[in-house]
Amino acid sequence: MKLRDHADRIIRDSIKSVLPDEAVYTALQNHAFTRGKVYLVSVGKAAWQMANAASMLLKDRVEKGVVVTKYDHVKGMIPKTDCYEAGHPVPDEHSVLGTQAALRLISDLTEDDTVLFLLSGGGSSLFEQPLIPLHELSDITGQMLSCGASITEMNTVRKRLSAVKGGRFAKRCEPARVYSIVLSDILGDPLDMIASGPAYPDSSTCSQAVRIAQKYKLQLSKKAWELLKEETPKELTNVETQITGSVRELCRAAARAAKDLGYEPVILTDELDCEAREAGAFLASIARSHQSSRKSLAFIAGGETIVHLTGTGMGGRNQELALSGAAGIAGLADTAIFSVGSDGTDGPTDAAGGYCDGQTKAVLAQAGIDICQTLTQNDAYHALKASGGLIFTGPTGTNVNDVAVLLIRR
Amino acid sequence: MKLRDHADRIIRDSIKSVLPDEAVYTALQNHAFTRGKVYLVSVGKAAWQMANAASMLLKDRVEKGVVVTKYDHVKGMIPKTDCYEAGHPVPDEHSVLGTQAALRLISDLTEDDTVLFLLSGGGSSLFEQPLIPLHELSDITGQMLSCGASITEMNTVRKRLSAVKGGRFAKRCEPARVYSIVLSDILGDPLDMIASGPAYPDSSTCSQAVRIAQKYKLQLSKKAWELLKEETPKELTNVETQITGSVRELCRAAARAAKDLGYEPVILTDELDCEAREAGAFLASIARSHQSSRKSLAFIAGGETIVHLTGTGMGGRNQELALSGAAGIAGLADTAIFSVGSDGTDGPTDAAGGYCDGQTKAVLAQAGIDICQTLTQNDAYHALKASGGLIFTGPTGTNVNDVAVLLIRR
Repeated sequence: MKLRDHADRIIRDSIKSVLPDEAVYTALQNHAFTRGKVYLVSVGKAAWQMANAASMLLKDRVEKGVVVTKYDHVKGMIPKTDCYEAGHPVPDEHSVLGTQAALRLISDLTEDDTVLFLLSGGGSSLFEQPLIPLHELSDITGQMLSCGASITEMNTVRKRLSAVKGGRFAKRCEPARVYSIVLSDILGDPLDMIASGPAYPDSSTCSQAVRIAQKYKLQLSKKAWELLKEETPKELTNVETQITGSVRELCRAAARAAKDLGYEPVILTDELDCEAREAGAFLASIARSHQSSRKSLAFIAGGETIVHLTGTGMGGRNQELALSGAAGIAGLADTAIFSVGSDGTDGPTDAAGGYCDGQTKAVLAQAGIDICQTLTQNDAYHALKASGGLIFTGPTGTNVNDVAVLLIRR
Repeated sequence: MKLRDHADRIIRDSIKSVLPDEAVYTALQNHAFTRGKVYLVSVGKAAWQMANAASMLLKDRVEKGVVVTKYDHVKGMIPKTDCYEAGHPVPDEHSVLGTQAALRLISDLTEDDTVLFLLSGGGSSLFEQPLIPLHELSDITGQMLSCGASITEMNTVRKRLSAVKGGRFAKRCEPARVYSIVLSDILGDPLDMIASGPAYPDSSTCSQAVRIAQKYKLQLSKKAWELLKEETPKELTNVETQITGSVRELCRAAARAAKDLGYEPVILTDELDCEAREAGAFLASIARSHQSSRKSLAFIAGGETIVHLTGTGMGGRNQELALSGAAGIAGLADTAIFSVGSDGTDGPTDAAGGYCDGQTKAVLAQAGIDICQTLTQNDAYHALKASGGLIFTGPTGTNVNDVAVLLIRR
């Protein structure tokens, strides 16, 4: 088997493990719904897949369901379930309509009932019932964006302007129980951040929210000011949460696949967040230092790197990471670096990521392509196309960040 | 013991292991000079220390010696040894004088004799006997610098214009044997690069040299053109080389020291060469992912990171790495990142590096210092001064790159 075949197998296996269906199956496998009725609320970009998987597994056990996902993301009928498509990344009237349907579904439940709450990325925008007019909410979001507020600061304010965020959805489900399955797309799985935590206790406080509004001199209506002072749930006794399909699972699956192929896997991190090309350089420096190893090694780094654009070429963070790695492992035998986005897309390209090995630099040089120059132009796509290093998976239907792998075969 | 105390001990122990004296002792310990006379030639910025250590150990066994080092680097008399101080980083007449003394010393030796050749960084400039006038050599170097030639290209040309570089010094020692102890300051220990490899077979060729001269349209005298076509030694049968005190040894010593303190050491790389602040971010991402570890862990990365200046503050690559790490490990208990230059200086500052832990970000925030802004201004020095995170060692007398360490104590 070629090294590239090893890479493809690791990519396939690791993405498979974090597909919404797989993730929901795994989470539901050991969960018993012993009492009452089960109501399904599924929210986010992967909401349809997650709901569909739950429906296939639980069948008639589900009493009724609501799905709220992004436009064009509903792939068919799900028994007893109403599917809504709505705005992302900016909430619109359809977000509110879908959310209201979910709220109707979970009103008047008994303590024997369970709300199966399936949550994936994009939920902040798709799942929203604002306590002020929607246009006012948009205006406040706009104010905060333009004055450079952090995402944490924005969420601290917005949670208080919403009927469902910051744990309030779970509170509304009471006295029913909530079993929440979260497909995480944020590094470190901060549950109060993913979709602004509809079913998770909120760690931010009213006084923080007021201070943020003062700090940025936000223009707020009287109603909005009052809402900032209404506290979110700090404790939820009716919720059980299962994180699944996160980048951590992506890394673990990559490690298992690598081990099956004879490599000793080392998961360096599942919270990688540095500059893409520098992550590639770091992995390459590990590669060079471990050339005398007698064992085959697989170093795995999951997360989401960043790219600061300096050119106008085509590429994505995974492609840049791999191409940068190619410069650092040039000439090394049986050594490869690849990186792939679990959603199957990398930047504004049709590729999911990039693969490079010890020969790539020479292959590119023959084609007249200089790696350093290509990176400055952010044109990794065309370089990898020339070296046969593009990775294609097609859209996968999941989004739990990226995984980068360094393989040293001995 | 505080985490900072652990850091200081690891720094002290690892630098000690790569001091010129220690390195020479280690390399000579298992070497027996059985036959003939021993002649000492020591070249480079650490030449005096290395020669002094060898002289202390071998005593009367040394017949005669020559030291060529940088101005102000001779620290006293060494028995039977002539010490020369010369130009660095640009060779001058004193470089040539010292080199000629060395060449006189090793002429007319017998096959029973040994030349103990001690080499450290800076040798390219300090050890030079040009085959063309010195001013012409300077002019060619200037031409190559201004047209952006790589260091490898420059060396390929310059080796052929020198009587001692590219293995030619060892050739001149024949029939005597050469025992070469190299204190490496270049990542990956490329022996034909360190000081342009006076005692190491040259891997570059005449045709490469001619192509480089043509590529950059170098203005060369007839004599210089002829020299480019004279081949350097491709094989040396009289040389034994011992690399010592390299960044690899620095990392190993850091690993030993960490282990003594109860950490499980992991040497990630000894060839780190990416952007300093991104290396800090990468180590921090490893830190966050390993917080649930039950064992105390020490991740070690040696090498030489780079800094692209974006501001006019004060700092160095080690300080930037540590400070950038502080942002990524903020709030983590018993977690620290530090980085130090083995020469005891980091950038144009009086510090050797920087130390940060999970509390650093909060301490800086209280002092009104923002890490991200500080890094943009390249002003790590003043931030670390405020957090008590500067590391001071004073000049160490060695230079084998840097070592960065992530400690997670459990």
